[in-house]
Amino acid sequence: MLSFKELAAVFNDYLGGYSYPSEPSGLYKPVEYIMSLGGKRIRPLLCLASYNLYHNNVMKAADAAMAVEVFHNFSLVHDDLMDNADIRRGKASVHKKYDDNTAILSGDVMLIMSYQCFEKYPEKFYELNRLFSKTAIEVCEGQRMDMDFENMERPPIDDYIKMISLKTSVLIACALQMGAVIASAPSKDAEHLYEFGKNIGIAFQVQDDLLDSFGKDAMIGKKVGGDILQRKKTYLYLKSLDLLSQEQAIRLKNLYSEQTLSDAEHIHEVKTLFKAAHVDVHAQELKLVYQQLAMSHLDAVDVEESKKQVLRSFAENLLDRSY
Amino acid sequence: MLSFKELAAVFNDYLGGYSYPSEPSGLYKPVEYIMSLGGKRIRPLLCLASYNLYHNNVMKAADAAMAVEVFHNFSLVHDDLMDNADIRRGKASVHKKYDDNTAILSGDVMLIMSYQCFEKYPEKFYELNRLFSKTAIEVCEGQRMDMDFENMERPPIDDYIKMISLKTSVLIACALQMGAVIASAPSKDAEHLYEFGKNIGIAFQVQDDLLDSFGKDAMIGKKVGGDILQRKKTYLYLKSLDLLSQEQAIRLKNLYSEQTLSDAEHIHEVKTLFKAAHVDVHAQELKLVYQQLAMSHLDAVDVEESKKQVLRSFAENLLDRSY
Repeated sequence: MLSFKELAAVFNDYLGGYSYPSEPSGLYKPVEYIMSLGGKRIRPLLCLASYNLYHNNVMKAADAAMAVEVFHNFSLVHDDLMDNADIRRGKASVHKKYDDNTAILSGDVMLIMSYQCFEKYPEKFYELNRLFSKTAIEVCEGQRMDMDFENMERPPIDDYIKMISLKTSVLIACALQMGAVIASAPSKDAEHLYEFGKNIGIAFQVQDDLLDSFGKDAMIGKKVGGDILQRKKTYLYLKSLDLLSQEQAIRLKNLYSEQTLSDAEHIHEVKTLFKAAHVDVHAQELKLVYQQLAMSHLDAVDVEESKKQVLRSFAENLLDRSY
Repeated sequence: MLSFKELAAVFNDYLGGYSYPSEPSGLYKPVEYIMSLGGKRIRPLLCLASYNLYHNNVMKAADAAMAVEVFHNFSLVHDDLMDNADIRRGKASVHKKYDDNTAILSGDVMLIMSYQCFEKYPEKFYELNRLFSKTAIEVCEGQRMDMDFENMERPPIDDYIKMISLKTSVLIACALQMGAVIASAPSKDAEHLYEFGKNIGIAFQVQDDLLDSFGKDAMIGKKVGGDILQRKKTYLYLKSLDLLSQEQAIRLKNLYSEQTLSDAEHIHEVKTLFKAAHVDVHAQELKLVYQQLAMSHLDAVDVEESKKQVLRSFAENLLDRSY
């Protein structure tokens, strides 16, 4: 069993040895650029860790891990363009460093490249591709729901959970299941690992919402209140509307439709209402529900407890950020 | 053996019975929209025709035909956005009818949907996917080369042929090969059908370049001289630079870098130089070379001559537009 750090070393080695096509350079340089910006590589490492529950030669799972990482980066390239987000991991996003058309086309080729990674698994090809396509479609659906929420006054909380599940969790789930598929694990195990990942993903996103409003700048690596300034209809916002008095709820809605206050005042007022609603307690509870659900699926995976320690620690680390 | 018209009826039936997912509608309505705009459906029909060389139940090849058609339409959605082309088949293009972000995201989901079509062929899945990914990558490379040529004074003619081959011909070739693969045709046949399609595609594009400058408005369904106005570095332009005197070549280059003349004057002057170079004769010769190469590959396909008549007539019809 390799530790998460050791798995990261394996995947970094793989990435270092990966050679992108050279021509036309206008197509492939942007691919190399976004892939080189780093990030936590959570999805590929989970794919390797899942495979490692069953076998030691984790390099066997590296191509599938790469597929997921390339797909994730494809989605960042297109999402950054759609969101007009000029910074990615502290550097210029692809459409900013190059141009919009380059972001579209190099993103497209990344999506195709991610499919090509599975060609290394002729025997598992059908199963991997099918799972991957289903997941990729869901990610697009989640992104569309997120875009649609901008124009909705009050999307149902259930739809919000569905959106974050599609937009972020299913790819984490897919990465874990793929590791199991490549390892020829029992299908029950593969499904439990999928559900483990999916629920961890949702818990992580709820925590992310919480940290955005209640974290400290230094802890989250960005300014507190970004979601609030962007008027994002997060769980905190939607649940507060349920919990607050009618008068307070109207005030919160107005804050999200107006632009009259300074940024600092706007954040302060919204947070005051979030606190009045005690929505942080509810969000923590929700996070815990998904976290426990995730762990119950990990418990159900039919391998020795000691082997699951890597995934267990990973989840605990990911979800222990208090605010 | 079905005629091309009968194959079209089969594919239209298939399309009519195809149900797109309904939600989120902001994702899938644009997909239905672009797919409903019609077009000649050349690629899917060639896929069916190729399958039909070997077997009668052409519906068996309909899902692969659909994959190619969905992919082709995906490329139109993203290309129209990149080219700022507001009209597609006489209607608003997707980014114009909806918005830019919708064109990006619904295009992405179409690319994934095209992969999903192959799930109907578990036994040929690996072969079909591999061919499809290779082709899809090449289409992106062709599009990138086309974009790069805009900023090059004089791309080599060989690169121009390579660009049109990647951007348009390989998908036609892929469609034909897929029909053969699904029919379990001998691999030699599948390769000859691929080469038939690829060379037909190049011949067709050269003809398209010719018609743009030397056709009649009514014949080509659009204004003559569109490429000339857009300063596209087509075969006619690049070959003329080879054929003209130094003085004339400088004049042609200047015409492509200036915007001083009226549209009509610009087209007239460029065409006068094209005629002085007799570049139409060269282009016709080039078209014929590729057309004959295509036919020699069709000849080499190991099925009865009578069965090949549909593909032969198709190619002749496609390439008999004189100017």
